[in-house]
Amino acid sequence: MRKDIDCIFCAIAAGEIPAEILAENETCVSFLDAEPLASGHMLVIPKSHALDILSASVETAGDLMKLTKRVVAALNVALRPDGFTIGINHGHAAGQAVPHLHLHVVPRFAGDGGKSIHGALAGMVSDPVPEIGQKIKDALKSLPD
Amino acid sequence: MRKDIDCIFCAIAAGEIPAEILAENETCVSFLDAEPLASGHMLVIPKSHALDILSASVETAGDLMKLTKRVVAALNVALRPDGFTIGINHGHAAGQAVPHLHLHVVPRFAGDGGKSIHGALAGMVSDPVPEIGQKIKDALKSLPD
Repeated sequence: MRKDIDCIFCAIAAGEIPAEILAENETCVSFLDAEPLASGHMLVIPKSHALDILSASVETAGDLMKLTKRVVAALNVALRPDGFTIGINHGHAAGQAVPHLHLHVVPRFAGDGGKSIHGALAGMVSDPVPEIGQKIKDALKSLPD
Repeated sequence: MRKDIDCIFCAIAAGEIPAEILAENETCVSFLDAEPLASGHMLVIPKSHALDILSASVETAGDLMKLTKRVVAALNVALRPDGFTIGINHGHAAGQAVPHLHLHVVPRFAGDGGKSIHGALAGMVSDPVPEIGQKIKDALKSLPD
């Protein structure tokens, strides 16, 4: 397992720092967020150190969402919430606080006062990029398979 | 392919409604959001109809994040953003607007005025659930493998 000795999530994955571990698969592990936004707020992370989805392997990326599906199903049974906010703050500009890929799963209830992901981004300033679709397609061609 | 005749995302996946399709794998497809929060805002969806991550198959869930990794890499090359907000509004209470699983990828830039996912959920009212970790573990035991 690739490990960063200064990384708190690597330490949790290695069992060196206590956390309420809930589930795992071959490459990923899920545990309760130590600073929950709601009861049952969970994180899903790769066991091996990866800053973000770009530095994780394709297989690990897949495993991350497979494990997410499983813990969402469990939270659904345990809490019967009305929904979930599921997401990744990727990079400092998006609010990533720990430099180890982590996906948040937050149970949501009608009238809880929380917003959608769109609510977080409403009013964001963004200049239109001409031919954005073509630019992305060109970039896709430049990527390895 | 399982299809809901009234579902706009099923129609996009089937090519019956035009969209700027960017990439696909066996079970999922990515295209530009028709109501972008920023230039390059993309969606990743399963081709077969699934309301949410719970109703998608495990393999499709994995494919969803594998394709997400690919389009994030392409956006990273095309736009050189400072980050991404990546996430799913699951269920009406979380702001899901189209009843077909879709993951948002929104490029982020320092100072764009957008918030983190936490920003959307700050101030949310949530009652502590006693023994939440144990409740989730019990629920996990009740799930099929």
